Amino acid sequence: MPIYCVGHKIPDSDSICGAIALAYLKNQIGEEAVATRLGELSPETAFILDKFGLEAPELKLSYAGEQVYIVDHSEVTQAPDDIAEATIVGIVDHHKLGDLTTSTPLECWIRPVGCSNTVIKMMYDFHGVEIPKAIAGIMLCAILSDTVIFKSPTCTTADIRCVEALAEIAGIEDFKGLGMEMFKVKSAVEGTPARDLVLRDFKDFDMNGNLVGIGQLEVIDLAVLDAVKPALVEDIAKLKAEGNRHSVLLLLTDIMKEGSELLVISDDLSVVERAYGQSIEDGKVWLDGVLSRKKQVVPPLQQAFA
Amino acid sequence: MPIYCVGHKIPDSDSICGAIALAYLKNQIGEEAVATRLGELSPETAFILDKFGLEAPELKLSYAGEQVYIVDHSEVTQAPDDIAEATIVGIVDHHKLGDLTTSTPLECWIRPVGCSNTVIKMMYDFHGVEIPKAIAGIMLCAILSDTVIFKSPTCTTADIRCVEALAEIAGIEDFKGLGMEMFKVKSAVEGTPARDLVLRDFKDFDMNGNLVGIGQLEVIDLAVLDAVKPALVEDIAKLKAEGNRHSVLLLLTDIMKEGSELLVISDDLSVVERAYGQSIEDGKVWLDGVLSRKKQVVPPLQQAFA
Repeated sequence: MPIYCVGHKIPDSDSICGAIALAYLKNQIGEEAVATRLGELSPETAFILDKFGLEAPELKLSYAGEQVYIVDHSEVTQAPDDIAEATIVGIVDHHKLGDLTTSTPLECWIRPVGCSNTVIKMMYDFHGVEIPKAIAGIMLCAILSDTVIFKSPTCTTADIRCVEALAEIAGIEDFKGLGMEMFKVKSAVEGTPARDLVLRDFKDFDMNGNLVGIGQLEVIDLAVLDAVKPALVEDIAKLKAEGNRHSVLLLLTDIMKEGSELLVISDDLSVVERAYGQSIEDGKVWLDGVLSRKKQVVPPLQQAFA
Repeated sequence: MPIYCVGHKIPDSDSICGAIALAYLKNQIGEEAVATRLGELSPETAFILDKFGLEAPELKLSYAGEQVYIVDHSEVTQAPDDIAEATIVGIVDHHKLGDLTTSTPLECWIRPVGCSNTVIKMMYDFHGVEIPKAIAGIMLCAILSDTVIFKSPTCTTADIRCVEALAEIAGIEDFKGLGMEMFKVKSAVEGTPARDLVLRDFKDFDMNGNLVGIGQLEVIDLAVLDAVKPALVEDIAKLKAEGNRHSVLLLLTDIMKEGSELLVISDDLSVVERAYGQSIEDGKVWLDGVLSRKKQVVPPLQQAFA
């Protein structure tokens, strides 16, 4: 029976590349493992896998009775729907500790770094397993994506050292150039339905009993979103109603200006205003220096709900 | 502001020795840390610290507003009462994943091995920090205690290798002899009140909404408990009523015969009988081969409650 290595719902590059890298490592140390995914690839992830000639993990939604190694989260809402009927054998992550629990001992590799793939690199080092060129390439891209090419406040020296080491293995000289190429793919929104954009990197959080959905779109220049912004606002309102959510937040992150425009629809805007210490006009506010949902957006909101 | 390294309530040797070993490591890598404890030392732990000339960690019950590194568990019931008001910066453990959560990223070193101190040894290796002789000694004793001198089914090759490496550092040739000496101290019950014996290694678990307390006494020969057994039965009945518990289980483990006599008081004995596939006569049953609460007692009971 293989161990399924799977990231979170609405997978980002860290979840997909991490599942592939972890499954490869497990197979090398004699534990049969298969990388899987809980949803469609984003254009960014498709670009990364294509670039290094790797296949997408298989789509698999049900895990009852299986062994699962959770990648890039520890939250029930982000895990497979039937995770309670699976055996979680491990978790590799870089977020706050969520509400997944187990009935048997497991391994958790959780570190306060910028990306799960940085932690997976530590696992390779621990087990003394060589990383193949292509896998080093996708791990490196996942780290550049999660750390916004080292600009995010979540980025640590461990992430930077890790990218440097992986770049050497993958034979990539200009990894920052590769990062920009990747973010250009991410910034292409033309012809994409508003719902797809909103859900591209969307996570639900339980905040003191309130369901809060937070999406993020990272672009090189916010101007590319001007035309679709009204449709985005309309769509997050729909998403709030459909999911019976307390609030839906969408971060439009400008990685060059290093800040985010926040779009909000909420049952109680004052909670959100309290969280970020800013008044919200017309459902919008510019948050200067805010690049990281995990470090700069979720914790203050969680506090405001507490 | 130091990081407090603290084990679980009613601390065992793993919790105490682990807190000391972890605090020392943190200080070596430039993070100010202080070992603390949530309760009195057991005679076994007092013997270990005395043997290697180390001080007991300070008793500290409140952690609101502090930074805490949790040792040897990840359960709210076993953590400091005000843990929700503290910042958990890390967890080192070898149990199932419990219900502690955080609002910020942290480090979790959790592995399915026999003892937290085995995981802490891996942390020393990761950081390249040398272990002082005395700390190697107490870490080794904690592992021998948790693995019942390698007899417990929780014991892994990692634990054995770790004890061998620590014995070399500590200059101990006959570590199995040291383990027996330690278990002899643990087996001395004369003159100890029944309540002290019951609580010596006692943990509460939330099992599908039911509070279940499980204690364990490990002795070299069960005969030493004959005289106190009626008092133990009486006391676990009291403990059940006082704590409004669904059940209280007490394992009397004979480490030479490699099995445990289980004493039970329960609102529903049939759940316990279903868990272990044995009928319970007069509140007692012999469980052959059962040495580990974590691996052989908690999981089947959790299943029976599910």
